[in-house]
Amino acid sequence: MSGQSFRAIQWRSGTITLLDQTQLPNREAYVEARTVEDVAQAIERLVVRGAPAIGITAAYGMVLAAEQSEDLEAADRRLRRTRPTAVNLFWALDRMARVWRVGGSAAELADEATRIDEEDAASCRRIGELGAEIIPDGARILTHCNAGALATSELGTALAVIRVAHARGKRIQVFADETRPVLQGARLTMWELMKDGIDVTLVPDVAVAHLLYEEQIDCAIVGADRVAKNGDVANKIGTRGVACLMCAHEKPFYVAAPWSTFDPSLEDGRAVEIEERNPEEVRQIRGVAIAPEGARVRNPAFDVTPARWVSDLVTDRGRTGADLAAGLARLMGPEFSERTPPPRSVAH
Amino acid sequence: MSGQSFRAIQWRSGTITLLDQTQLPNREAYVEARTVEDVAQAIERLVVRGAPAIGITAAYGMVLAAEQSEDLEAADRRLRRTRPTAVNLFWALDRMARVWRVGGSAAELADEATRIDEEDAASCRRIGELGAEIIPDGARILTHCNAGALATSELGTALAVIRVAHARGKRIQVFADETRPVLQGARLTMWELMKDGIDVTLVPDVAVAHLLYEEQIDCAIVGADRVAKNGDVANKIGTRGVACLMCAHEKPFYVAAPWSTFDPSLEDGRAVEIEERNPEEVRQIRGVAIAPEGARVRNPAFDVTPARWVSDLVTDRGRTGADLAAGLARLMGPEFSERTPPPRSVAH
Repeated sequence: MSGQSFRAIQWRSGTITLLDQTQLPNREAYVEARTVEDVAQAIERLVVRGAPAIGITAAYGMVLAAEQSEDLEAADRRLRRTRPTAVNLFWALDRMARVWRVGGSAAELADEATRIDEEDAASCRRIGELGAEIIPDGARILTHCNAGALATSELGTALAVIRVAHARGKRIQVFADETRPVLQGARLTMWELMKDGIDVTLVPDVAVAHLLYEEQIDCAIVGADRVAKNGDVANKIGTRGVACLMCAHEKPFYVAAPWSTFDPSLEDGRAVEIEERNPEEVRQIRGVAIAPEGARVRNPAFDVTPARWVSDLVTDRGRTGADLAAGLARLMGPEFSERTPPPRSVAH
Repeated sequence: MSGQSFRAIQWRSGTITLLDQTQLPNREAYVEARTVEDVAQAIERLVVRGAPAIGITAAYGMVLAAEQSEDLEAADRRLRRTRPTAVNLFWALDRMARVWRVGGSAAELADEATRIDEEDAASCRRIGELGAEIIPDGARILTHCNAGALATSELGTALAVIRVAHARGKRIQVFADETRPVLQGARLTMWELMKDGIDVTLVPDVAVAHLLYEEQIDCAIVGADRVAKNGDVANKIGTRGVACLMCAHEKPFYVAAPWSTFDPSLEDGRAVEIEERNPEEVRQIRGVAIAPEGARVRNPAFDVTPARWVSDLVTDRGRTGADLAAGLARLMGPEFSERTPPPRSVAH
């Protein structure tokens, strides 16, 4: 279905091999993580990033800890401290904990981590299939950040939708915005889609409104780091702005994410912890100063998009439709015992 | 009123000395322009930028041409080809043409260029005074791009408002967005306001929506490159997105510009030519590649904000109020003989 010729995360006993995403697109270099500390730092430094990929990597990190007879409680705590916003990290570590807390062996932990990895791959394929149905032939699609193979086991979430639509012969044109400050759009999404031979154009984040004014964009699709019960979506900084623009220009804004991104413990997006990252990510671009020395900086890594700005949420269990809260409750099925409150606005 | 210790443009017979804005904030270097071709290239390379500053520089460029007995028709044509969007360039060259077309001497041209320069300084002071009235004490103000002393003769337009409010003892806090791709916010606005000791924080363009969600921003103020008769505003790429976000979050969005930015020959913003700049501005940041080689790029340098998203337009003739078309007609006075059509939407 795709020309994807790489895997962001490769496991073999004793080593996690990570494609170093901080070096892309200039170099395809690999980092080998052999200890929990290696894994934690790779997640913190964004060697590996993207909600599903962080979860998978952390799961394998727990296998390393078990293989090396590290303190599993400490390993679990260290990995949970790496990045606060994506729920998949906590979800994957919870799954691993259900094995090691009852005395599961390193081999049993390896089985569980591999299952998480393989389930994610299946989930991405399913998201791609379900999402491709809502992409019309000829669509010009904006995507923000990188919700691609680099962010998951393979295929991606938002980019799985694009890949499957492309594989089914739909003529599509993709606009990837840069996604400052870390430039995941310019560096990673461009790299992935150019490798796959999909028609893609890079645009500065600031140019999205102008492309909408020119009627060059038909819809947008992005991934998610955490989805609250009411459908509010935490995702890469800038997502809220894109969603607002799509809404103001009356174009659909879609989110694609595996079910593991759903956090039914949160009533709405207000409770999501937003990671504030190092100001140097803003003061410098790849080592070059772009602001006066000592400039004060805000650098939130994520933002919250209210459910009412999202036209549909594509998960591996199905699509929610425009009423995200109701759709999430329906897809949750019997697990979801409480009544869902009506969607609440988080915008001011 | 301000600690401003530099001038972007300095004229003495035979030479225009320009503060090289492409080198800021890393180096304060100066470029000397001695021929019309030097001036044209300095404008094209963004050594000098900002609508009023481009007009002033082009006016002095015509003096150089006259002093060196260059072909004035050719000099005028060369300068008009540099950048298409800001109307001040054409306005200043029209003023100079009214002198040289009737055989005015180099000294008379120098007088006219100096008048344009001094009138701009007076206009900036007036904009600052009128604009400061609408800035409440304690305001947290977002600005986009650089509408400062670097973009004008002195003080700036949007930044004149901020400077006068600050000088009058209003406690204000400024957020400067980066303004990709050329980073005028990060490089120039941060440099100017930090020099002046004004409280300023740099934010990635993508973080503006999150700051609004956090209720950290009370209003936004920007400059303009061209204002149409109905109040539609052409300004630096990204302005339309900021205006849309301010509107969606019910916060005022102000524009500050000298009267020379008003173009009554345009019914609305749709007729404004939007300059598309070199894709390398997007593929590289200060010489460092940030996208795959050969990546296709869109790089529009300006966008159009519909008048209905603008809360007030501050000019040196007065403020328009929220109905920009009516306000512009009123400020135009007897010059404005036609009836103004009702404001028209340019958003889709």
